[in-house]
Amino acid sequence: MFQAAVQRFSVSAAAESVCRTIFLVGFRRYCKKTSTKLRVSEALSGAELGSDVKVQGWVRSVRPQKDNIFLHVNDGSSLQSLQIVAGAKLHDPLLTFGSAVEVTGVLKKSPHQKQPVELEAEQIRVVGECNPIDFPFKIKERHSLEYIRKLPHLRCRTNAFSSLLRIRSEATAAIHSYFKDNGFVQIHTPIITSNDCEGAGELFRVEPSGPDYVDDEDFFSVPAFLTVSGQLHLEVISGAFSKVYTFGPSFRAENSQSRRHLAEFFMVEAEISFTESLEDLTRVMEDMFRSATEHVLAHCVEDVDLFHRHVTPGHRDTVEAMLNKSFPVITYTEAIEILHRHSEKFTFPTDWGCDLKTEHEKYLVKHCGNVPVFVTDYPYDLKPFYARDNQDHPKHTAAAVDLLVPGVGELCGGSLREERLNLLMARLKQ
Amino acid sequence: MFQAAVQRFSVSAAAESVCRTIFLVGFRRYCKKTSTKLRVSEALSGAELGSDVKVQGWVRSVRPQKDNIFLHVNDGSSLQSLQIVAGAKLHDPLLTFGSAVEVTGVLKKSPHQKQPVELEAEQIRVVGECNPIDFPFKIKERHSLEYIRKLPHLRCRTNAFSSLLRIRSEATAAIHSYFKDNGFVQIHTPIITSNDCEGAGELFRVEPSGPDYVDDEDFFSVPAFLTVSGQLHLEVISGAFSKVYTFGPSFRAENSQSRRHLAEFFMVEAEISFTESLEDLTRVMEDMFRSATEHVLAHCVEDVDLFHRHVTPGHRDTVEAMLNKSFPVITYTEAIEILHRHSEKFTFPTDWGCDLKTEHEKYLVKHCGNVPVFVTDYPYDLKPFYARDNQDHPKHTAAAVDLLVPGVGELCGGSLREERLNLLMARLKQ
Repeated sequence: MFQAAVQRFSVSAAAESVCRTIFLVGFRRYCKKTSTKLRVSEALSGAELGSDVKVQGWVRSVRPQKDNIFLHVNDGSSLQSLQIVAGAKLHDPLLTFGSAVEVTGVLKKSPHQKQPVELEAEQIRVVGECNPIDFPFKIKERHSLEYIRKLPHLRCRTNAFSSLLRIRSEATAAIHSYFKDNGFVQIHTPIITSNDCEGAGELFRVEPSGPDYVDDEDFFSVPAFLTVSGQLHLEVISGAFSKVYTFGPSFRAENSQSRRHLAEFFMVEAEISFTESLEDLTRVMEDMFRSATEHVLAHCVEDVDLFHRHVTPGHRDTVEAMLNKSFPVITYTEAIEILHRHSEKFTFPTDWGCDLKTEHEKYLVKHCGNVPVFVTDYPYDLKPFYARDNQDHPKHTAAAVDLLVPGVGELCGGSLREERLNLLMARLKQ
Repeated sequence: MFQAAVQRFSVSAAAESVCRTIFLVGFRRYCKKTSTKLRVSEALSGAELGSDVKVQGWVRSVRPQKDNIFLHVNDGSSLQSLQIVAGAKLHDPLLTFGSAVEVTGVLKKSPHQKQPVELEAEQIRVVGECNPIDFPFKIKERHSLEYIRKLPHLRCRTNAFSSLLRIRSEATAAIHSYFKDNGFVQIHTPIITSNDCEGAGELFRVEPSGPDYVDDEDFFSVPAFLTVSGQLHLEVISGAFSKVYTFGPSFRAENSQSRRHLAEFFMVEAEISFTESLEDLTRVMEDMFRSATEHVLAHCVEDVDLFHRHVTPGHRDTVEAMLNKSFPVITYTEAIEILHRHSEKFTFPTDWGCDLKTEHEKYLVKHCGNVPVFVTDYPYDLKPFYARDNQDHPKHTAAAVDLLVPGVGELCGGSLREERLNLLMARLKQ
């Protein structure tokens, strides 16, 4: 430890040997009190260059060499790990791949191009041991997603999952920022509810469990379900707040194992009062999509790059190309005309009145230049009761819109809400 | 309408009559295209003074006078409504209390002290009618909370509820900001889960409903419940991320009708790796409490003032007084000593080992000067299995802490997590 300190000092100044030793002792004591605790991402940003710092994290690699040990330590704050350089005397058999460590030392410019800074360690403390024989991840091995999936308690230690979690966190923050900056009030719509907004019957029932509640159907007085949408609650609030949104979990009891069907998922829903045309909605959808995507691209550069290179090759380019173009708007009728011209390519029918299937959505998106496409004015009978009747003939449509996105399909859907009481009453009767 | 326009013009300039009229016609047409849509809060901020603007909202009052009509319009963006001044010719019998309107005109400094600006209307369009005879709220009447509670679809039109929703929205944003600014990654822990973190058995069971799933117990392969806490999931993530948090709905099937027991509520949970003492936790709790409270006081001035004056009198002063003092830290043992000296004041026992009840919490908070108080090191047997054993004798305690807050009681709780495998295994067996 003392040696490490001397090494550090000798880099920065030259002085008489005795004097140096005394100074160092005093300095070390001072350091111990004041070494700044940094996250790895902060250390990598180079903000505290030359300072005494403390970094804590998990060992991603250990390379003992003749004079030095090189470690990479990660704490989840960034994809990149911090390189630690320690004198051979700091070697500890517990310093293994996967162990949790606390390192104090001085942050320096790295002589290597790969990383901007490195931490010259004065002290390394193993605070959590990890037996590399039992540990299911092996150093320098790339494990398949299938293998990782079997280790849910450890998968966040992998690059792919930790990147995903950071991206999700940033995307969530960006969505909240977009709405806040645009004057929307956030509403927590209830999770447990008695209404079935979508009317599709894919509900989860909620009942109290445990010994106190054997066959107690009356806990909520009415049958209670998990929300499939906060829309009806938001519509109520939008009778007093002209811009509201909710962003929370939604639930569907769809018994299918697909990428597009989850029992539990997060959904953004917004209601805007005083809308007059679908353009009022498409503007918000497009702006939100752009601002959240731009935020993630700007704030998760390394994480996006990892996915771009290894998980979904070329994905960042696709996304950036989308952002550089304006999003076309076509009506459902126009969409059907496009599809019908190539009906031989599709399994499902392309007649007016048919629902757009994934194969249709993919084709439309490609046809429009691989950008997000708004499809508006769907057949009245395809849309739920609250969508505004366009009262057109002979093709009867509703003022509804979907945003189809390359690689995703339908990402957003919306409609003008039917405000004419007589029409709403008549449809509810139906 | 034309008259309103002339009035507007005559304030700003004097010119030859014919010329003026021609100019106005051109100007009006131009306005129609470019009048800026403003929220009421933006209009009140005076940013667009002198500009042609459009404001949409709900009528909170109508006062027709000889030459003018005075309206107050609110759109949920602020407690204060915008005063609209309209020439008598704009009078419309549909312009009633509760109706939804769209007003275009010029934003001007108000001659009255009560409001900073007013909107001189050129056009008023009633876009949503409201029959004041049927409408359950009456103009200028203050309705009781009990009455309002019976009208869940309209209660957000009242000052108290709309203030509450705005404060909740700001408080939510402030909590997210606090964690983001301090390097925490937000994790969406699952809502449907098979674990019972608290072990109290107050769970809601989740099962698919509907015709497809009669007696289908195997939807999730295991019994599934609504989360009571995301802690165990966060603990897993905190094996790779040193700072994580979640902020979402939690559920407890507690069959009691009290202010402190809800089937569904929002909860913030954070896990910090590499903590060494309870101070690492109390600092985060105190900082979060302070930053969220300060944000709400600064950004919801009028809404807080409404509650301060009419709902919970004097509350803002209490809160501000809390923020001006440091939060004392006492041990459970010290707390019991304080309480035991006045045991005659309490219904529940004050012996070492007893749980602190609401009456005790209230007394402690008052005793410490009506500020939030941290109580640390609770009896080992009172705390859940994951709290770190202090291994002290004869009074056996765990490294757990609660934050007691005036008027609330226990607001936050936390503990160092037991990391010693042998102790954890032994306790799990128990």
